[in-house]
Amino acid sequence: MKSAVLTSVKNIELQQIDIPTLKNDEVLIRVKAVGLCGSDVHYYEHGKVGNFIVEKPIILGHEASGDIVKVGKDVTHLKEGQRVSIEPGATCGECVHCKEGRYNLCPSVEFLATPPYDGAFCEYIAMRADLVFPIPDSMSYETAALVEPFSVGVHAIRRGDLQPGETVIIMGMGPIGLVTAAAAKVAGAKMIIGVDLEQNRLDVAKEMGATHTINLREEKLEEKVNEYTNGFGVDLAIETAGNPKAVQGTLSSVRKGGRVAIVGMSPQDEVPMSISSMIDKEVDIKGIFRYHDTYPTAIEMLASGKIDIEKMITNEYPLAETAEAFERAIHDKTNTLKIMIYPS
Amino acid sequence: MKSAVLTSVKNIELQQIDIPTLKNDEVLIRVKAVGLCGSDVHYYEHGKVGNFIVEKPIILGHEASGDIVKVGKDVTHLKEGQRVSIEPGATCGECVHCKEGRYNLCPSVEFLATPPYDGAFCEYIAMRADLVFPIPDSMSYETAALVEPFSVGVHAIRRGDLQPGETVIIMGMGPIGLVTAAAAKVAGAKMIIGVDLEQNRLDVAKEMGATHTINLREEKLEEKVNEYTNGFGVDLAIETAGNPKAVQGTLSSVRKGGRVAIVGMSPQDEVPMSISSMIDKEVDIKGIFRYHDTYPTAIEMLASGKIDIEKMITNEYPLAETAEAFERAIHDKTNTLKIMIYPS
Amino acid sequence: MKSAVLTSVKNIELQQIDIPTLKNDEVLIRVKAVGLCGSDVHYYEHGKVGNFIVEKPIILGHEASGDIVKVGKDVTHLKEGQRVSIEPGATCGECVHCKEGRYNLCPSVEFLATPPYDGAFCEYIAMRADLVFPIPDSMSYETAALVEPFSVGVHAIRRGDLQPGETVIIMGMGPIGLVTAAAAKVAGAKMIIGVDLEQNRLDVAKEMGATHTINLREEKLEEKVNEYTNGFGVDLAIETAGNPKAVQGTLSSVRKGGRVAIVGMSPQDEVPMSISSMIDKEVDIKGIFRYHDTYPTAIEMLASGKIDIEKMITNEYPLAETAEAFERAIHDKTNTLKIMIYPS
Amino acid sequence: MKSAVLTSVKNIELQQIDIPTLKNDEVLIRVKAVGLCGSDVHYYEHGKVGNFIVEKPIILGHEASGDIVKVGKDVTHLKEGQRVSIEPGATCGECVHCKEGRYNLCPSVEFLATPPYDGAFCEYIAMRADLVFPIPDSMSYETAALVEPFSVGVHAIRRGDLQPGETVIIMGMGPIGLVTAAAAKVAGAKMIIGVDLEQNRLDVAKEMGATHTINLREEKLEEKVNEYTNGFGVDLAIETAGNPKAVQGTLSSVRKGGRVAIVGMSPQDEVPMSISSMIDKEVDIKGIFRYHDTYPTAIEMLASGKIDIEKMITNEYPLAETAEAFERAIHDKTNTLKIMIYPS
Repeated sequence: MKSAVLTSVKNIELQQIDIPTLKNDEVLIRVKAVGLCGSDVHYYEHGKVGNFIVEKPIILGHEASGDIVKVGKDVTHLKEGQRVSIEPGATCGECVHCKEGRYNLCPSVEFLATPPYDGAFCEYIAMRADLVFPIPDSMSYETAALVEPFSVGVHAIRRGDLQPGETVIIMGMGPIGLVTAAAAKVAGAKMIIGVDLEQNRLDVAKEMGATHTINLREEKLEEKVNEYTNGFGVDLAIETAGNPKAVQGTLSSVRKGGRVAIVGMSPQDEVPMSISSMIDKEVDIKGIFRYHDTYPTAIEMLASGKIDIEKMITNEYPLAETAEAFERAIHDKTNTLKIMIYPS
Repeated sequence: MKSAVLTSVKNIELQQIDIPTLKNDEVLIRVKAVGLCGSDVHYYEHGKVGNFIVEKPIILGHEASGDIVKVGKDVTHLKEGQRVSIEPGATCGECVHCKEGRYNLCPSVEFLATPPYDGAFCEYIAMRADLVFPIPDSMSYETAALVEPFSVGVHAIRRGDLQPGETVIIMGMGPIGLVTAAAAKVAGAKMIIGVDLEQNRLDVAKEMGATHTINLREEKLEEKVNEYTNGFGVDLAIETAGNPKAVQGTLSSVRKGGRVAIVGMSPQDEVPMSISSMIDKEVDIKGIFRYHDTYPTAIEMLASGKIDIEKMITNEYPLAETAEAFERAIHDKTNTLKIMIYPS
Repeated sequence: MKSAVLTSVKNIELQQIDIPTLKNDEVLIRVKAVGLCGSDVHYYEHGKVGNFIVEKPIILGHEASGDIVKVGKDVTHLKEGQRVSIEPGATCGECVHCKEGRYNLCPSVEFLATPPYDGAFCEYIAMRADLVFPIPDSMSYETAALVEPFSVGVHAIRRGDLQPGETVIIMGMGPIGLVTAAAAKVAGAKMIIGVDLEQNRLDVAKEMGATHTINLREEKLEEKVNEYTNGFGVDLAIETAGNPKAVQGTLSSVRKGGRVAIVGMSPQDEVPMSISSMIDKEVDIKGIFRYHDTYPTAIEMLASGKIDIEKMITNEYPLAETAEAFERAIHDKTNTLKIMIYPS
Repeated sequence: MKSAVLTSVKNIELQQIDIPTLKNDEVLIRVKAVGLCGSDVHYYEHGKVGNFIVEKPIILGHEASGDIVKVGKDVTHLKEGQRVSIEPGATCGECVHCKEGRYNLCPSVEFLATPPYDGAFCEYIAMRADLVFPIPDSMSYETAALVEPFSVGVHAIRRGDLQPGETVIIMGMGPIGLVTAAAAKVAGAKMIIGVDLEQNRLDVAKEMGATHTINLREEKLEEKVNEYTNGFGVDLAIETAGNPKAVQGTLSSVRKGGRVAIVGMSPQDEVPMSISSMIDKEVDIKGIFRYHDTYPTAIEMLASGKIDIEKMITNEYPLAETAEAFERAIHDKTNTLKIMIYPS
C-alpha cells in the first residue's frame, strides 16, 4: 500500500509498504480522510513533541476515518463495509487510570502517530475493534475524521461542567478552539465568546457556534467580557491558544464560582497566574489532556446537524501531496485552519 | 384591583381587593399572564394538595409574568417598566437546606398559591426582588409565565445529569413532560423519547423536542426502547406521569449505569420497584421537587429560540373567566394542555 | 493440588487436581485464607444465583488472600514471596462500562466462583496481575481475604457520598452491613446506626464501628432514628439486609436532601417504595453492585488500625472441612457471621 | 462592657462601650474565648487586608465561642445558657452565590472583624441566630472558638474531594495547615504529609494528624514525596503557606488525575505555574475561600475525639492584654501558633 513516511525532519516520502497484518481483535480499515493536526506539523518541523522523539521513520496522522475492509475473527460487533471513525489511542485497560475511567492518562497508551507508533497517512490501517465507531450514512468521511479533534472540545466542556444556558469564553480560535465552540453550541450554551487576533478565524468561529467574538487586535478582553456579561463574568473559560496572556485572561474573565479549562500547551511552560483570583472567586481549574469516552457521543453531536464542523476545513490534498500539505501548514498559518488528506 | 378568589371548593369569585402594599425589598408587578397548573386545579376541586389545606379564601396561580410598576426603596437591580418573570417561592435563606444551595427544600418557603399564601390570578402582585427576573424584549409574557413549569424540566435534567449526545425517555407528555422534553432538547440530547397514551399529546411532544414517541395504546414500551437504542437502554429516564407503571418503566428502560429522575407524584404513593434492576444496573434514582437556581438559565434557554414553549398553550382566558378556565381544565383533560389567564 | 469441588447441589468433594498453568500476565498464588460468602452458600444450596447456574463441577470461594509463588513473564510490578489480597473479577477493559470507569458493570467479567469460573477453595490460583494487591506485613491473611466484602462497604459509602461528620444508618448487620459500618467509621462518620433483629449481630456491630444500634425486635425504627437525630433524619441510609421493610426504612430514615444506597438483593424483587418520600425529600437512591477501584484504598483503610475487621470471623475450617463449613453456615445462621477456610 | 479596640495602626486600647442591642432574630453571647488570626494581625500591623481598609476604630477577632445570655424574640431553636460556637459571616441569602449554596462568595457578607464590622475581642456580641451553633458539654470554649479556622480545613478537603484511604500533602504547618491536617485525619486519609521549614511546627503537625513530615531546610520535596508514595504522587495537594514555591510544589507532588487546593494568599500574587503539569496530569485545581456549611459537621468532627485541636494553642491572654498578644504574634512568629484571648 502507499504511505506518506516522515523519514527525517521536514522530509516526507511516499513509500510502498505492506498492508498491516490483522490481529484477531482488530479490523482493517481503508483510510478515507485524515486531518492534519498541529502535533503532526510539530513532529515534521522539529522531530519531536515534548519527550516524544522521532527516532526512526514514522507515518503521521491520527484524525482518521474510513471503511472496514476486513474483520478479525474475535470481533463480533463490527462488519465489513461499515463506514467508521477511528479513536487513535489504544490503552491498556489494566492500570489505575484506565480502571478509574480516565484512560486518557494511561501511561501505556499506543497512540497513532506518536513515536514509535505509526499513524494514518496511508491506505490501510489495523485498529483494535473497541476503537472503531460506525458513523451514520449522512456523515461525511471528513466529519468522521474530525471527531478526533472535536472530542477534545467535548472533553473540555464536560470537565468544565458546561450547563445549558451558561456563558463560555474560548481563548484561541484555531482548530481546537473552533471545535470547542461547536461542542458548547450543541451543549446549549447561551453565549459563546470566541477570542483571537485573526479576523478570519473569528469569522469561521461565528459559523461554528460563537455567538460573540473579541478581536484582541482591536478590543480589550476585560472590557468586552464585562460588556457581554454585564460585569458578572463567564461561567466557564477555556484556554486553547497555548498563550500565557490567554491563560491569565481565563482568570480575569471567569465569574465568582466559575470554572476554567486549560487545553493549550504553552511554549513558555510556566505562566504567572493570579492566586488571589483563584481564591477570591473560588475558581475550579481543570487540566485537559486529550479525551475519554467521547466517540459515540461526539458522533451523535455532529450527526445532529446543529453544527457543520467541515467549515473549518481550509485545504484538501491527496496522499501523494502530503509533503505539500505540511509545507502549507507551516507557511500559511493565518489562512490555514484544518487541512484534510485523502489516502484513497 | 380585580382578583379571582377561590372562596370554597369549586367556587371562584371575581372580587375587588386592595393592591398589596410594597415592602422595601419588594417590587410591585402588574400581572400580564399566568399559567394554570395541575396543583391549582387540585386545590379548586378538592380544597387541598397533600397536607396543604385551603382554610380561607385564596387566590390561586403561580406561573406568572408581568411589568414592574413600582420598586421598593431598598431594591437597586430592578426598575419600573421592566418586563419580568416571577419565581413563586420565597425561601428563608437561613435554614440548612437554603445554605446548602437546595432552597427548594426550605420548610419555611412562602409559595404563591399554596395555602395560606395568595397567588397571581389578580391584577397586581408584590414580590421580593430576588424572585423577579427581567426577560428579553423578544420574549412573550406567555413564555415568561411558563418559565415556572419549564424550571421543573430544567431541574430534572440537571439532577439527572443529562449530557449532550445522550438519550432520554420521558414518561407522560402532560405539561411537565413536555417542558422536560424541551429542556432536554436545548441541552443537546440526541434522542428524546416521549411516552403517553394520547396521540394529541405525542403530536405536541414532537413539536417541543421529542425525536421519538411511544404511544402505549398501540406500542410496547420495552420493545420500542430496545428498537430505538439497539438494546442498550436510555441514559436517563424521567417520570412525569405520576403513574406506577411509568415509574416501573423507568427502571426497565434505563441502561446499566444510567439515571432515573422521579418528578410525578403518584395517586398511589407506594409503587413496587425492582430492587434487582436498581442493583444490577447500578442505577441512580433522583427525586425531583420543584427547582432551584433555574430562572436566569431557563430564561436564556427559552430565549435561544431552539424551542417554542407556547406550543403547549391550548386555551386562553381573561381574568374574569378564571372559573370557566378551571372547569375546562377538569372537563376536557385530553385536549387541554396549558391554559393561560390574562389578568390585565 | 487439593481443591474443594462442588460436584452437585449440597455435595462438596475434596479432589486432587492440576495446579493451574500460568499465563504471561498472571501470577500464581498459594491460597492462605478464603472467606465464605452468602453467594457461595446459595450456589451450594440451590445450584444457582439468579441467572448464574452451576452446570458442571465448580470450585467456590472468591474472598481470598495468599502468597505469590510464581510470576508470569510479562508481570513487572509483583514478585515472588509477596503476600497479597485478590480482587476476584477480571474485566475486559474495552467495553463502554470498563472505559467509563465502572468496570463492575462489565458484562464480560470473569468472576471467581461464578459459573463457569472456578474460585479459591483450593491450594493454588492463577490471577491476572492487575487483580493482585500486596498487603503490609502487619496485615493478616484473614483481613486480606476480607478486603473483598469490605470493598462492597467502601463502594457503598463512596456512591453514597458519605462525608466526615455525617450520620449514617445501615439496615442489616450481617457481614456486608458490618463491613459497611467499618468503612463508614474510617471515613469519619459521626453517627453510625446499626439495625438488626439479632442482638449478637448488634453486639459485633458495636465493635466494628456502629455508634448506635436499633434492635427491631424491641425498638421502633422511626422512633429511634428521630431520637438519635433530633428529628432531622440521617444523611445516608444503606440497605444491606435484602428485606422489603428495610428498603422502606431507608426512605423513612433519611433526611431531606439525603442519600440512600441499596446493596442487598431482596428475595421479593419488587418492593413498594414511597414516591412522595423520594420527591418531597429529593432523595438520591443509588444501586450498589459489587465495587470498583477499591482494593488499594480498602487495604489502606484496614491497615490503618482504626477497625478490626476480623471481629466478624466466627468460625474457621481447614480446606478438608469445607463441606462442614457450608453446613454450619446453613444450619447456624444466627451465630455465624463470617466463616474462614484455610486451603494451605 | 469591656472591649479591645484598634484605634489606629498598632494601637489597641481597652475601652468601655455599650453592650450591643439585640435584634429579634439574634442572640446575645457572652464571649468566652477568641482565637487570634493572621488577618487580625495584618489589620493591626498594616491597617488593611487587600481592599478592606480600617477607616475608623474597630474591634478585631472572629474565631469565637461563648454562652448565650439572651435570645431574640423570633429565635426558637436556641436558648439562654447554651454554650456555642460562632460562625462569623452573615450572608444575604438572596444573591446568586447564596442561592447556589456557595454563600462564602456572597458580596454582601457582614464578617466579624472585617471593616466596617466589629469582631469579638469584647465581652458581649450579638449574632444572627442561624450563625450560632450549640456545642457538646465535653467541648471546651477554646475548641469551640477554633471551629472557625478548622472550617477552612474542612472546606479544603471537601472541595479537594478527599476520600478515605487517600494520600494528602499539606504545604505550610501554620494554623491553617495544622487544622487541615486534622480535618484530613478525621476524614480517613491514609497518609498526611506536613511540609514546613520549622521543626517545631512539624512536631505539632505530628500531634494533629500528620503521618509524615518534610522539613524543607533539610529535605527535598520531590525526593521525599517520591519516597513516601513510591513515585506515584499524592491524591490531593493543599497549599496553605501562601508561598510561590509551595504553590509550585503542589503541581509537582500531585499524581496524575489528582487534585490541588489553593488556600494560602501569596504576598506575590502572580505565581508561575506549570501548564504542562496541569494538562499532562489532568489536575483539578480548586481555589478555597473561607468555607460554607461546615459548622455542625466541624463541631462533630472535633467532638469525635480523634483529634485534639488545642495542641496548636501556644499562648493565652486575658482581654486586658490583647495588645500584648498582638505584639507577641508579630515578634515571636516561629514559636507562636495560635494565641487565645479570654474576654470574660
